[in-house]
Amino acid sequence: MSAILEQMHAGAARLADTLASEAAPLGVEVSRLAHGARLIDAGVRATGSIEAGRLYAECCLGGLGRVGVEAARLGRATILEARVAVDQPLVACMASQYAGWRIQVGTFFAMGSGPARSLAAAEPLFEKYPLRSRSETAVLLLETGVLPGADVADHVASRCGVAPASVTLIAASTGSLVGSTQIAARSVETALHKLLELGFDLTSIVAGAGCCPIAPGTPDALRAIGRTNDAVLYGARVVLWARCDDRDVDEVIDRLPSSSSKDHGRLFHDLFREYGGDFYKIDPMLFSPAQVSVLNVSTGRVFSNGSTDEVMLKKSFGIDG
Amino acid sequence: MSAILEQMHAGAARLADTLASEAAPLGVEVSRLAHGARLIDAGVRATGSIEAGRLYAECCLGGLGRVGVEAARLGRATILEARVAVDQPLVACMASQYAGWRIQVGTFFAMGSGPARSLAAAEPLFEKYPLRSRSETAVLLLETGVLPGADVADHVASRCGVAPASVTLIAASTGSLVGSTQIAARSVETALHKLLELGFDLTSIVAGAGCCPIAPGTPDALRAIGRTNDAVLYGARVVLWARCDDRDVDEVIDRLPSSSSKDHGRLFHDLFREYGGDFYKIDPMLFSPAQVSVLNVSTGRVFSNGSTDEVMLKKSFGIDG
Amino acid sequence: MSAILEQMHAGAARLADTLASEAAPLGVEVSRLAHGARLIDAGVRATGSIEAGRLYAECCLGGLGRVGVEAARLGRATILEARVAVDQPLVACMASQYAGWRIQVGTFFAMGSGPARSLAAAEPLFEKYPLRSRSETAVLLLETGVLPGADVADHVASRCGVAPASVTLIAASTGSLVGSTQIAARSVETALHKLLELGFDLTSIVAGAGCCPIAPGTPDALRAIGRTNDAVLYGARVVLWARCDDRDVDEVIDRLPSSSSKDHGRLFHDLFREYGGDFYKIDPMLFSPAQVSVLNVSTGRVFSNGSTDEVMLKKSFGIDG
Repeated sequence: MSAILEQMHAGAARLADTLASEAAPLGVEVSRLAHGARLIDAGVRATGSIEAGRLYAECCLGGLGRVGVEAARLGRATILEARVAVDQPLVACMASQYAGWRIQVGTFFAMGSGPARSLAAAEPLFEKYPLRSRSETAVLLLETGVLPGADVADHVASRCGVAPASVTLIAASTGSLVGSTQIAARSVETALHKLLELGFDLTSIVAGAGCCPIAPGTPDALRAIGRTNDAVLYGARVVLWARCDDRDVDEVIDRLPSSSSKDHGRLFHDLFREYGGDFYKIDPMLFSPAQVSVLNVSTGRVFSNGSTDEVMLKKSFGIDG
Repeated sequence: MSAILEQMHAGAARLADTLASEAAPLGVEVSRLAHGARLIDAGVRATGSIEAGRLYAECCLGGLGRVGVEAARLGRATILEARVAVDQPLVACMASQYAGWRIQVGTFFAMGSGPARSLAAAEPLFEKYPLRSRSETAVLLLETGVLPGADVADHVASRCGVAPASVTLIAASTGSLVGSTQIAARSVETALHKLLELGFDLTSIVAGAGCCPIAPGTPDALRAIGRTNDAVLYGARVVLWARCDDRDVDEVIDRLPSSSSKDHGRLFHDLFREYGGDFYKIDPMLFSPAQVSVLNVSTGRVFSNGSTDEVMLKKSFGIDG
Repeated sequence: MSAILEQMHAGAARLADTLASEAAPLGVEVSRLAHGARLIDAGVRATGSIEAGRLYAECCLGGLGRVGVEAARLGRATILEARVAVDQPLVACMASQYAGWRIQVGTFFAMGSGPARSLAAAEPLFEKYPLRSRSETAVLLLETGVLPGADVADHVASRCGVAPASVTLIAASTGSLVGSTQIAARSVETALHKLLELGFDLTSIVAGAGCCPIAPGTPDALRAIGRTNDAVLYGARVVLWARCDDRDVDEVIDRLPSSSSKDHGRLFHDLFREYGGDFYKIDPMLFSPAQVSVLNVSTGRVFSNGSTDEVMLKKSFGIDG
């Protein structure tokens, strides 16, 4: 496990360096904060690009997965789609990609993703699985409409046990090109997190792959949250290869896709409004891909549940026909 | 902009070097013309390969996009398909990929593509957008059934302000594997060029992606031109991310896909014959992808028009059922 | 040809080195056998990964093709799919990828794939085509449920004319993630081998691409053989670009896909049982992709035959609905 965690930090550092060294063609902006932390704006003020979104998403995975972005049909329209293949999903998705670290410093608030989470180990997840690690550099990716300042970098450095100058923060807003892309690359991670919620042993997941529509970007933050969630809930398909007992999968498969939630079937934006803007009132069982298949390589059985819903996607994205 | 233009030249040079250094497995032939220019035959006498087609297409884009080639279904047949994702589309597609430079030297004639266009800046486009650049090397890609000689290289060198020994010419015929592939990788470029014709401000296009069938190759030059055009006109799908006013898109979206042209609905080969072989009599509005969606990230609106036509594609490619 | 064969050895050595150097994240295990041969377990005792499967498959091709693995829909389920694009298919598929070398040493038995075949040249194929080569390193890939020992490596070294310490053996069982993936990457190879059986001149095949479902893994060796064969026979689509006379294709196209065999239409596992477990009693004409198109670039004609069968695939993989 420790070799893989080490690889995760090295992979993310390499991808962050690529983003920085090709900043101009990638449409990202690199700066240094006080105390030397590196800030890469990939979609707050910066325009970003498809390739920056791809690199951001692979960086979230600590380099332990491959992300592709392609044109795909949705109804009569063409949109972007993100495809992801993940090895070592427990490390890639849970120690790194999951946006589970609450970063609150002064007025700044964002959920943090990336290998720095495994250094801070601030979440209950790190008590359940041995995913805590050490590294001399910390890469944290932030979904935010506001660029973080030196105080955020200092906080991250301190919690990660590294010098501020060894911190890289990479930021993009939800509704930017990079933001929409990196969220759509979370199809496998979303399935794993749902399995975690269902009490499934994540060490038995060998590999995963998925595809998910990239929600059309928008400057309206609430609508962006709505569309990017709808993309996963109604558009993501995932296959997981597992090594386990069939009965362990039998126990969770019916509750695995988003359709198992009582909140399924409505646009996320509408739900959010109905719950008075309180994210935590939404049924946690809702957060999963539209369709999930689990293939148990210990027995050869294939389990499947859920299905994608093109009508909901078109409604969410404002696409006619 | 200048950093991106620089990257475009560096990217094309790197891709040309890859073509040359792996000539044998790629099926291309490398030679030196008088005065030292490098000639890479990727599909005139040479056989080429799928990977050479992919590299040729990425070279046309100055390395500012990613091209993939995959098997795809068309009716009951399987054909090749090109997928492209472009960042910095104004530079990648307009300063480099668009085949807009007329190269006429003695009896040699071809339309030139690639970053050398941005050095010569021989086209009206370069008066409209600040895409002129300087570089010590010039890479020009030629769609031609005849290999260019030293006189062509000298002409290119002179117009680009570089030494003949710093010129790389890469050639492939329309109906060759590399030729068909690189044309199918022009889906986004074709949409941008159509927008240019419609007077749309191309600086507002942030990114684009598309897919397009690769026309089955043929030694009949006219049929090759017919099939490769039909592939785009009836088979290409494109999505563009833009930052602009919705009314700017509203003004062009109905005229954006090929179906908006009075010449739409007939095989390109037949049209060409009807117009007595005069390319310039064909309605310029015809030259666009079958389907285009524009996503305005400034407002979140998605605009779409056009659709692909499998019946026309099968007729053009000689595929039954 | 010799430059391409050289590239094949270099490509496989490079890919084997990548597998070894990133063993931990790739889920493979590397060891040294007596006399120094390198053994990479990618799916016998080791778990493997999607990326290890991709690299194994590209290693089989001697680096002369590109393999991609993606999530794909099958009925209501999501499974993995392998896509392959091959240049130099005679060398890549026939001198290297085809699993045609019987390796029988003591109680160990497996069919060997990879560039080492071109050194040993133990098969009749090497009398028909000039695909024999020399190299200082030998890479052999083995589909096996049992790890090979030093005696196997010594045998391979001796037959290949290299020192045992210059041999790399890479092993994965049929029903492992890597095993299922590398077999699904054989769509083009299977079409070429069928053409060989039909007496077609393989030097006229310029390039090929295909896609094929990755059979869900299983520990039951017979069922694994059944599913991986069904994946190709009922799920693979292939396009080949050729340079030849149309009549040469006309003579073979009807017999090219699996549907031309009298044994088509039954699950491979059932066939195998009916023939008393004797692989060689199964009609050799069965072993081909479900659908094959041949595009003759010398004339522009497209030939197609066969079709995929989702019902058979779902039955084979145990997928309802």
